[in-house]
Amino acid sequence: VSMIFAPLTLLMFYWGSVQMFAFLGVILALMLNELQTIYRDEGYKISPLVTVLGMLIYMASALEQHFLLLGIFLMGLIVLSSLYIFSNQPSGALSKLAISIFTMIYPAYFLSMLYRLRALEDGRSIVISLIAVIWLTDTAAYFCGMLLGRRKGIIKISPNKTLEGYLGGIIFALAGSGFMVMFWQLDKQFIWMLAITGGIIGQYGDLFESLLKRDLQIKDSSRLLQEHGGILDRFDSLLFAAPSLYVIIKLFGVN
Amino acid sequence: VSMIFAPLTLLMFYWGSVQMFAFLGVILALMLNELQTIYRDEGYKISPLVTVLGMLIYMASALEQHFLLLGIFLMGLIVLSSLYIFSNQPSGALSKLAISIFTMIYPAYFLSMLYRLRALEDGRSIVISLIAVIWLTDTAAYFCGMLLGRRKGIIKISPNKTLEGYLGGIIFALAGSGFMVMFWQLDKQFIWMLAITGGIIGQYGDLFESLLKRDLQIKDSSRLLQEHGGILDRFDSLLFAAPSLYVIIKLFGVN
Repeated sequence: VSMIFAPLTLLMFYWGSVQMFAFLGVILALMLNELQTIYRDEGYKISPLVTVLGMLIYMASALEQHFLLLGIFLMGLIVLSSLYIFSNQPSGALSKLAISIFTMIYPAYFLSMLYRLRALEDGRSIVISLIAVIWLTDTAAYFCGMLLGRRKGIIKISPNKTLEGYLGGIIFALAGSGFMVMFWQLDKQFIWMLAITGGIIGQYGDLFESLLKRDLQIKDSSRLLQEHGGILDRFDSLLFAAPSLYVIIKLFGVN
Repeated sequence: VSMIFAPLTLLMFYWGSVQMFAFLGVILALMLNELQTIYRDEGYKISPLVTVLGMLIYMASALEQHFLLLGIFLMGLIVLSSLYIFSNQPSGALSKLAISIFTMIYPAYFLSMLYRLRALEDGRSIVISLIAVIWLTDTAAYFCGMLLGRRKGIIKISPNKTLEGYLGGIIFALAGSGFMVMFWQLDKQFIWMLAITGGIIGQYGDLFESLLKRDLQIKDSSRLLQEHGGILDRFDSLLFAAPSLYVIIKLFGVN
């Protein structure tokens, strides 16, 4: 799967435009479907409308239609809450509604940031650099953990990860960011932006997914991979890194 | 309380500017505190950081700092999820995190729309018209329900409300909107915008709060009023009507 998926992702990010927009849309649909399946297995049943609303949020956000985005959020809240109001099922409504809204927003909104990054002036080099740094970080964290790892379980949610792995990931993220910025002749400021978002926030995205998995009792990620496609597993780091990089670029200039 | 609170609200909306910004900030702090108290009584313990993050979201959104808003949302998600990650408490994390995020966003984001509405070209007349139509709708719904109400419990979440009350609210909302638009010499299009948001969506806000109250076993709203200040009770209609009116104005022109 990786053999096809990784080059395909790179190609789509390279192309940008409508191809990337559609590709991310498909990824999102798979993600939302995967989340619904996981929730259902664990007794949190949420409406399939969440997938439709999430797709709309993705589109409005990717195309930077701020007011439409607010309108869809509002409509989503009204539609999803009305399911409990008009069927008179208040019991547990707050919790179920909050999970539905959360699921409607975060994968869609965060994934849309990849498209927004791509639409920036240096968009092509930015998104390719980001994905390269994230892959490098993941790989470096894995090998550093395997070869040098002594201090296991510093973060108990992810008991097999080691301090050495995390640090190795960050160091290689920094080196990779330096290389990418030189290669694409980007502004030097991008080095720390890429290193922080790819190396630190990207690894946080992985922890975040571990938290959800532990809560939902999916201990073995390969179970997730085989039964549900594991699309979240592939994108967990990018999902947090992309909006972070976008915000940092927008708040601290460069573009 | 009403004797002071209603004219004070009107005055602040009339003034606008920093007074209204601060007034809404205080309202929000009371709301978030109220929600936390209600949750705690019912066993959903959420972090007090939600109040701080909600205040930041309100400020960024009211001042239309879109990128800052995204940054705060992202930071909020990272901060709130890290509480479960670093304390290694995954059990129920999805549900608690989703409720925290939901509480962080919706009152703050929606309340900020009142400030954004006030900042529009005809802002003063728009916010005063909106609040007048909402008060009129509430009053008309109450009296129409009391005097003419036959069909009780058409929406079982709110068993004492009648069809006649809802319809009376909508009819008076329309009449009030017509009056307001003439009085302030606003564009005729505002009539339907005000009537839909004040009369229909405003009444929905009330149902939405009923849903949460029923789920959280707060059946008697006066209990809420006395123990928790009942600030949500005062603002439930406006909380949904304000962002709706803002979106409609932005998407369909006029301003």
